[in-house]
Formats: sequence, C-alpha cells, structure tokens
Amino acid sequence: MMHDELQRSAADHLLLHFSKQRLDDLLVLERGEGPYVFDTRGRRYVDALSSLFCAQLGYSYGAELGAAATEQLTRLPFNTNWATAHPPAIELAERLTGLAPAGLTRAFFTSGGSEAVEAAWKLVREHYMAVGQPRRTKAIARDVAYHGVTLGALAFTGVARFKDDFGRPPIDVTHVSNTNAFRAPDGADPAAFCARLLAEVEAAVVAAGPDEVALIIAEPVQNAGGCLTPPPGYWRGLREIADRYGILLMADEVITGCGRLGEWFGVAREGVTPDLVSLAKGITAAYAPMGAVVTTDRVVQPLVDGGRVLRHGITFGGHPASAAVALRTIDIVARDGVLENVRTLEPYLRDRLGELLALPIVGDVRGTGFFWAIELVKDAANGRFDQAERDALLRGFLPGRLLEAGLIARADDRGDAVLQIAPPLISDRAVLDEIVDGLRDVLTDAGERFAAA
Amino acid sequence: MMHDELQRSAADHLLLHFSKQRLDDLLVLERGEGPYVFDTRGRRYVDALSSLFCAQLGYSYGAELGAAATEQLTRLPFNTNWATAHPPAIELAERLTGLAPAGLTRAFFTSGGSEAVEAAWKLVREHYMAVGQPRRTKAIARDVAYHGVTLGALAFTGVARFKDDFGRPPIDVTHVSNTNAFRAPDGADPAAFCARLLAEVEAAVVAAGPDEVALIIAEPVQNAGGCLTPPPGYWRGLREIADRYGILLMADEVITGCGRLGEWFGVAREGVTPDLVSLAKGITAAYAPMGAVVTTDRVVQPLVDGGRVLRHGITFGGHPASAAVALRTIDIVARDGVLENVRTLEPYLRDRLGELLALPIVGDVRGTGFFWAIELVKDAANGRFDQAERDALLRGFLPGRLLEAGLIARADDRGDAVLQIAPPLISDRAVLDEIVDGLRDVLTDAGERFAAA
Repeated sequence: MMHDELQRSAADHLLLHFSKQRLDDLLVLERGEGPYVFDTRGRRYVDALSSLFCAQLGYSYGAELGAAATEQLTRLPFNTNWATAHPPAIELAERLTGLAPAGLTRAFFTSGGSEAVEAAWKLVREHYMAVGQPRRTKAIARDVAYHGVTLGALAFTGVARFKDDFGRPPIDVTHVSNTNAFRAPDGADPAAFCARLLAEVEAAVVAAGPDEVALIIAEPVQNAGGCLTPPPGYWRGLREIADRYGILLMADEVITGCGRLGEWFGVAREGVTPDLVSLAKGITAAYAPMGAVVTTDRVVQPLVDGGRVLRHGITFGGHPASAAVALRTIDIVARDGVLENVRTLEPYLRDRLGELLALPIVGDVRGTGFFWAIELVKDAANGRFDQAERDALLRGFLPGRLLEAGLIARADDRGDAVLQIAPPLISDRAVLDEIVDGLRDVLTDAGERFAAA
Repeated sequence: MMHDELQRSAADHLLLHFSKQRLDDLLVLERGEGPYVFDTRGRRYVDALSSLFCAQLGYSYGAELGAAATEQLTRLPFNTNWATAHPPAIELAERLTGLAPAGLTRAFFTSGGSEAVEAAWKLVREHYMAVGQPRRTKAIARDVAYHGVTLGALAFTGVARFKDDFGRPPIDVTHVSNTNAFRAPDGADPAAFCARLLAEVEAAVVAAGPDEVALIIAEPVQNAGGCLTPPPGYWRGLREIADRYGILLMADEVITGCGRLGEWFGVAREGVTPDLVSLAKGITAAYAPMGAVVTTDRVVQPLVDGGRVLRHGITFGGHPASAAVALRTIDIVARDGVLENVRTLEPYLRDRLGELLALPIVGDVRGTGFFWAIELVKDAANGRFDQAERDALLRGFLPGRLLEAGLIARADDRGDAVLQIAPPLISDRAVLDEIVDGLRDVLTDAGERFAAA
C-alpha cells in the first residue's frame, strides 16, 4: 500500500494504542536504518526514543536477527513452556540469568512487559502461599510510576488517569513518593531526600501491616515523571526495608534493563540484588516480542519443595523464535560493544544535554545511561504549566515541531511536563549531537512561545 | 546443549508455566516436521494438540514464514502502534477484518490471548464512558471457561482453583452455566437445554442490573470442560439478550478462531456477529507471538467522535514481524486450502473418534472442526472419577502413556475428566488415523486400569 492508501486503511481498520482513534496525518513509519526511521513520505527521523525504549540496536540488524529467527523457525517454529520446554528457552534462561546480579538464577518468559509484571505478582503470591504466609497480599509502588495496563499491572501503576474508570484494583497497593529530586523540597540534599523517601516507604509498610505486604516494586530509574534517578543509597534502603519485614523486592526493568543504563540489569548500578526483575522491550532489541521475570532460588525453591504448580501461563511465553532472537541479541551486544558504547558516551550525552539548561524553558535535565528527561518549566522560578498550557505545548506544539526537526522524542506529562529521549544504544557522538542540536532548536522555539525568560 | 545438559539447565534456570517447577524427565522438544515433533531423545510424536491449539500449519513452514519475518526485519524491524503505525499492522488490520463476519471492521493488536481479552475489556469500558453509560462495569461469563490469567482476564475465567489466592477480581463477573450437554439433565433435548441456558443468562443480567452489565463473553466452543459445543440457537440467543439490554457481546476465539473450526472466525458457524472477537494462538500459526481484538465501528465510533484516547497500550502489540508472519499465514491458509481441509475432514474425524465410544472409559465424544474432547467416565453409568482417581488417571497414567504411544494430547479436569485433541489443520486422513488409533490403544489400557466395564 502507498501513503494515501495506508492513511485511509489505518483510519478505517487500525485501532491505535494510547491514542485518539482518528489522527490527521498519522505518522506511518516504513523503513529503518541504524538509528533512523523513514516515513511513507520518505522523511527521515532520528529515533531518539528507540520506538518506546525498545530498539537498543537501532534498525540495521534485520538480516542477522532474521537469520537467527529463521533458523529456529525451520527447526522448531513453536512449542510452549507449559510442562514441556524447548532448547532456545532453556538456553536463554541460562544465558540471561548469567548476566544478572548474582542470585538471580531463574527465568519465566512472557511476550512483553505488562505480562512480565503480572507473572511476577503471581509468582510472589505462590511463594507466600508455599511458605505459609498467605496473608501477604499487599504491595508498595510509587506515584506516577508506570508498570503496565493489564488490570493486575495497572494496580501497581501510579497514574490516576490510566486507572480511573477501570474499577477497583485487584491488589491493595500503597503508592509512595517517587524520586523526583527536582520538585522535592529537600531534593538538593540527597542524603536527607533519601532518608525521607525511605522513611515514607517504611511507614507505608507499617501502615499496611508488615505481615500483609508481599512486594515493593520500583524501577531503578523511573520512566513516568521523566527519568527519575534515585538518590545514592535508595535501593540499598529498599533492600533493607524489604528484608526487615520479610517482603520481596522487585525491580521493574522493562525500560531500564537490557543496556539502557549501560548494564544488562540497571539495578546492578545500585549494588543491590532484588528478588525479582521484570524485563521486556530491549530483551530482543525489539526484533521480536518477548518479556521475562528473573528471580531467585529463594523465591522459587518453596514451590519446588512443595511440588506446587505455578498457576500462571502465557502460551507464547518464551516463543522459540523470540528466544533465538534474544540469544543472538545477547551475542551482538557483547560482540559490538554496545554496553561499552553507552558507558563511554554517557558523560558526553550528559554534558551536551546539560547545555540545554541555558534555555529558559528547561528547568532540569536528568537521567542515566542513554535514558534522559528534560523537565519543561514556565519561567525562571521553575513554574509549572497549567493544564491548558500543557495541552498546547505537549500535545499541540511539540509533536509536530519535533517531527519537523527530524526527531522522534516523547513529550509527556504523566508527572510534570517533560521531553524524554532514549536513543538506540548503538548511537555514536554524531547521532547524539544531532539529537541534542535538534532539541535545542525545538526547545528554543518552544521557549519563545511558552516560557517567560 | 545436548539432552542431559538441557535437563540440568532447565531444572536450574527455567520456570515452567502452569506446572510444577521440578519435573523428572522434562519433555524437551527440539524439532518439528509437518504434524510431528521430536524430542531431544529423537522420539517422534504426533502433535495432536498443535502445541496448545496454536500450530495450525504444523511445523514445516519455517522457511517461508521465516523469509516473511526477515523481509520485514530488514525493512523495519520494529515500531509501535502508539500514535504512530507501520504498514504491516495496517495491512493486517484490513486483511483480518476482511475475513471477519460483516461489521467487524477494526483491529487492535496485542502479543497474545490474555492481552487481547484485557484490551477488549478496556475498549468496552471506554465505549461505555464515551456513550455516557459509565455504570456498565459488570460482565457475564461461563463456568469453567478459561479466558486467560492476567488479573483482568482472570476475572472472566471460571475456574476457581486458578483464581483462589489472587485476591478480589477487578471486574464483577457473574458465571453462568456452560454448554455441557453431556452432564446436563436436559442435554438430550437441545431446544429445552438452549432455552434454559439463555434464561439463566438473562436472569443473571437482570440480577446484576441490566444497566450495569457491559459485556457477555463466551467462546464459540468452550475449551475448558472439553470442547463444549453450543446447542443450536444459543449464540443467536446471546445476541438477542445483549441487544435487548444494550450489552456488548464478545466471542473469545483465542482457541476457536484462525481455522480451528474450519472458519477464520468460528462464530461465523453460528450466523451471529459479536461486537468484539479476541484472537491469538493461530493468528500466526504460532510462528510469532501475536493477538488481536476485532470489533465494530459501533463500538469504536463514540471514541472517535469524542476525540477520546483509548487508555491502553501494549508496546509489542502488532509487532511488524508478527504482522508480516500473520499476513503470510493468511496467504498460506488460502493457497494451501487449509480451511477446506478442516471442513472436508471434520466428518471423518467425527466418525473415527465416535468409534471410541465403544470403550468403557469413554462417555462422550464432542467437538467441531479439528477441536475434540473425549470425556472419560468410571463406568457404564457415566460415573465421575473422584479426585484421587483423577490424579492417578490424568496426571499419573495418561501423560506418560500418551507419550509412549507417540501422541501429544491433553488430559484435563478443569471441568470433568477429558482428553482433548486439536490436530494441526494440515493433518490428512493418515495423521488423523494415527491419532485415533493411538488414542484407542491408550484409552483401552486406561479403561482396563480405571474403568468398570
């Protein structure tokens, strides 16, 4: 189909995710190359968002990863991991856990992130049933955090407008403050900020009933709200609280995992081993749908010993072709020095983005690895935009202006107004420069229209 | 890895779905060919279950479908359908809705079945919010039906032991009787049986509050419980009840769709157009993870008119490679006469399975298309096995004996004790004979051990 036909067909037949269902001039992407994507008009964009934090390798590994998929599809195109198994899932479980912080030795595969979070919760509940603590049914999560939209995962999500209208959550979740230092009164004092946040987590556990809390779930760097990095010691503090009260700790690494922070498991940067980790998006560099929960013998062994059935199953979980693609992705990341590229260029990207702080509309620049947010402010006092201004800036002006500048980035206000980037992990200095230069142009224009100097 | 190493690695690292987490002698499948799969010991099995109702084309289309995947992976390996789109998802939406009963014109893509059911529910809720009926928050589903295990989908699932221990359901669902005619007192009188079932559905709607019910969800032929076919007129009756009370009707076709019943949409056999249909499993013949919700303009138009955002998104939903594989699967099903094969051989399979009724342990044989269940009974009076007998028969004896006979089939007792088959849709008479002959041997042995003559 050509451009006009695709526009018409999409309007008639395709339902879009998290979108209005009729978009004028829908952006239809048809080709990729390195960190670039091309639309059906032939226009080129730097995919500075890696197609929603997924395309770790960019878009030029199709021949190699297609060959890996085809090799598997001609051998065994499908079988489940329900009571049976197949070599690529087994091999991936071993390889992936080998990349994890010590102790994370077991993997359960799904087809994506929401499914991974749901599976993790089932596993947590089965664990507590097996160890004779069935009353642990509650959880602690964080304000504005996004953990998925299926109704179980949605209970952990801390964005009210995604939850309203979908009924009572199936899990009692207490949402505590996230690690937004920029908007915190004590954010400039990391030790005080960290101590206050951890005290709030502990108070939430105590209020919920320490023997009724099963899980603390958090992203190593929280996406929604804009790349909210934790203060030093925060994850060690979460680990201590979890241990003190016999609670399991989960790192949701659907976004932060698979190299985004320069590590296969971003939480490794915090020197902490959680009890569970969810992965998805980057696990196959997005060349096939896949998700995973990685966990410990301590979590699983009571099920083994009790001969208990894990009452959860995802037909396509650990699909042989997806597993083959994930295995080859692990090879490529090592062979092509992808983690090293992120680690090497992180300071450069940080410095270059830091230049944007000179623009009046830029209040804060924060992030880690190849995962950054720019918080947009109304004036020199870091004033917040009101709802009408956000609509005009984030949904009216920026999307079109970014595309005009040849950039795909994310304007978002699940928390405060931010512009986010997460470039493909294979991006070099020139690509990062192209992104930052484009952002400067766009934000200069935005500032002239929306911010007071 | 070789056999012993795979066994060890799986035990150490791979978490299994719906299974105990330590299986002696785990069945590891490593190769497929036509309707056959081969384990790591080189033993061959007829996959009479199509790897959990998925492998519609069997296992020999890897080169062709791998080429389709690779072609897409080298062009555009990934992008989302969140506010943007890509040609394969658009084309698939058009092609798939073109195969659906008239009126089902819109498709939303996911990566699997549970996700499709969750997405359908979100869409239903958004519809009712958009038309000013926010109080429609309840649903009607059926006893013993399986609609998935993520916590939203699980609310529809009618199997208590999969729900216990996972908290209060997020949706108020009333479960009504399913269409098990064999165990129904009036099952031998289809008209009376149908009228009673529909009266029960209507009574459940009235009891829940007719203006509080949003959805009636059912499979055209219910899987759990054992291929429970509806009596004539049942689906027309569901449609009438839904229309009478302004409720949406959904056919969950994750299993029954994509040719399993000889039609792309099994509900077409009932001459009824539901408001929503979920698909997964067979949509790619399992050569890639994918799911879908297909729905009508009537459901979607209020969102379009209101400029409303569908508050739901699955990153990998409509993955370009999965969509490319689904498109090629649609081509292959047409080119290779796959639906015609099912329709042609359905009477033959019915007759051959009917022969098994002569065995004392076989109480009922039921199904449609290439989707059949054999209900196992204790004696000539169709007595039920007690729990200990089920454990011994369904989990002790049958799994090993089936494999010994070179057969993969499913022994299950989410409802009564059944043995289910769902052969690849490319199976010819010889393969169906091999399956039935194998079942006869296995069930003869089982009868000698477990049933009174």
